Amino acid sequence: MRIVDKQQIVAHIDLDLAVQRIEEGFVAFSNGKVQVPPVQTFAFTGANGDCCVKSAFMEGSETFTVKVSTGFYDNPGKGLESNDGLVLVLSASNGQPLALLQDQGWLTCMRTALAGRIAARLLAPREVHAIGTLGTGTQARMQLEQLLPVTACRKVIVWGRSEAALESYRAFACALGFDVHTTTEPRRVAEGANLIVCTTPSRVALLDSEWVRPGTHITAVGADAPGKQELDPLLVARADRIIVDSIVQCRQYGEVSHALKAGLIEEAQLGEIGDLLDGRIVGRTSDDEITLVDLTGVAVQDAQIALCALQSLS
Amino acid sequence: MRIVDKQQIVAHIDLDLAVQRIEEGFVAFSNGKVQVPPVQTFAFTGANGDCCVKSAFMEGSETFTVKVSTGFYDNPGKGLESNDGLVLVLSASNGQPLALLQDQGWLTCMRTALAGRIAARLLAPREVHAIGTLGTGTQARMQLEQLLPVTACRKVIVWGRSEAALESYRAFACALGFDVHTTTEPRRVAEGANLIVCTTPSRVALLDSEWVRPGTHITAVGADAPGKQELDPLLVARADRIIVDSIVQCRQYGEVSHALKAGLIEEAQLGEIGDLLDGRIVGRTSDDEITLVDLTGVAVQDAQIALCALQSLS
Repeated sequence: MRIVDKQQIVAHIDLDLAVQRIEEGFVAFSNGKVQVPPVQTFAFTGANGDCCVKSAFMEGSETFTVKVSTGFYDNPGKGLESNDGLVLVLSASNGQPLALLQDQGWLTCMRTALAGRIAARLLAPREVHAIGTLGTGTQARMQLEQLLPVTACRKVIVWGRSEAALESYRAFACALGFDVHTTTEPRRVAEGANLIVCTTPSRVALLDSEWVRPGTHITAVGADAPGKQELDPLLVARADRIIVDSIVQCRQYGEVSHALKAGLIEEAQLGEIGDLLDGRIVGRTSDDEITLVDLTGVAVQDAQIALCALQSLS
Repeated sequence: MRIVDKQQIVAHIDLDLAVQRIEEGFVAFSNGKVQVPPVQTFAFTGANGDCCVKSAFMEGSETFTVKVSTGFYDNPGKGLESNDGLVLVLSASNGQPLALLQDQGWLTCMRTALAGRIAARLLAPREVHAIGTLGTGTQARMQLEQLLPVTACRKVIVWGRSEAALESYRAFACALGFDVHTTTEPRRVAEGANLIVCTTPSRVALLDSEWVRPGTHITAVGADAPGKQELDPLLVARADRIIVDSIVQCRQYGEVSHALKAGLIEEAQLGEIGDLLDGRIVGRTSDDEITLVDLTGVAVQDAQIALCALQSLS
């Protein structure tokens, strides 16, 4: 079994190929061509941690994957990263373990950022005045990097709770060539930006519906587990187009779940990103529409980026 | 992360400690102190293979485990073993991967055999006239080895379909010191033995109720997935005491599931091995009782034997 570490993966992965593979994965998933067993989850309440195991097999693929990702939120106080994880790649023809990708959670972060890139390419307004991000962490940074190829806009408005984190994000985004505006009021992001990415682990809505301007696109990636929420359910209901990665999963959690439970939207209003990529449903149809992509993370993304990482190394 | 191969595990594991750990695991499981997310399963129909992912965390443990096991039944024709697999051990205090046990499925076989040992110790008749086994493969051999410490009986009657496999088993069991009788009729096992272990992947009942003698104990380990069956449901219903590893799991598959579905037994008749070990339910109460232990394999066994394997190596 081949063992690959994070540095090797980061140095060699072909991100354009990864985008293509993830798109193929979304399409296959929406066509019912992916085996995705129920996500396994653990809660380590005493240690303020959790773990999830996501596994997938895309029919026709030579491999399948089992991904383990952990989040232990007191780790930074011990000098460790909060997130860790790895991906196992096994042969779908003889069951033998082929590779262990010790990516420490990096592939999960990257496949999430690439899904944001795909969402923005499909649904962002033709003219982006400013990009907005909720959050200043790793995902907020990777999302911004991945927007570089899909918009010419180089202005970003970033919301965070801590001035120090905002200043750190400013330095990061400046180095990418952005004009950076920081704020501690989420309202300023909604009022100034028309391509917004929400990346926080918040458990209360941060963005009110009334703040958001017509024509805005929102990609929400933070609410990846039950109880998490970044958007006012009224904002979800106000969106003209709601796209999710997995209807089955977004019924249970994600931004859409809160609006469904409140009776503000119906499941029939939801479309899957795989169906949008495959041309079976339409995306944005006018400059004034508000579009929302709610991404909870589907195991087929893990399978496809892991395969791409391996192919990029060989 | 420590990487350990099968040879190291087999050479160093302390099996008496493993029995103790597995017993602790069964007790904790029946006390509701183990997080066992739903088993993930894949079917690779084109390749005649399957995979399951079993994960567990026993409260209070410093670690948790994710086990991947595969079965690809055309592998022998390619010069490969049918079964493969590995176990990941992660820290329950910070989420970091601690060890990868590349046991190629050996730990799963062994924890199953040790559960058979525990079952026989708890429920076998006081005087074992002969041990019977259905099946001649790896599990039938490991079960026989693990009965050595719990019974003085050194006579075995083994059923198999192939004379070559039976002769191979004979050589194996002779080397362990057994008087070996082989047969191609399951009836002979039931008529001659009063401690029977069923280890085949059969999908039809092999043992009829009327053949089995009063006082017999049966441990059934073959039916570990939907559709598998080794015992006549009437035999399950005839048993005076039915013990399972997990009531939740045995409702879905295992010998007991067939008898439940046929309405021949009620769930209230079932007891868990963890409750028996903990003294909350009784086992055999007379020499004439037929006792049955139905083992489908619970993830806490994997967690506990993996921990034991690591402790034995350090």
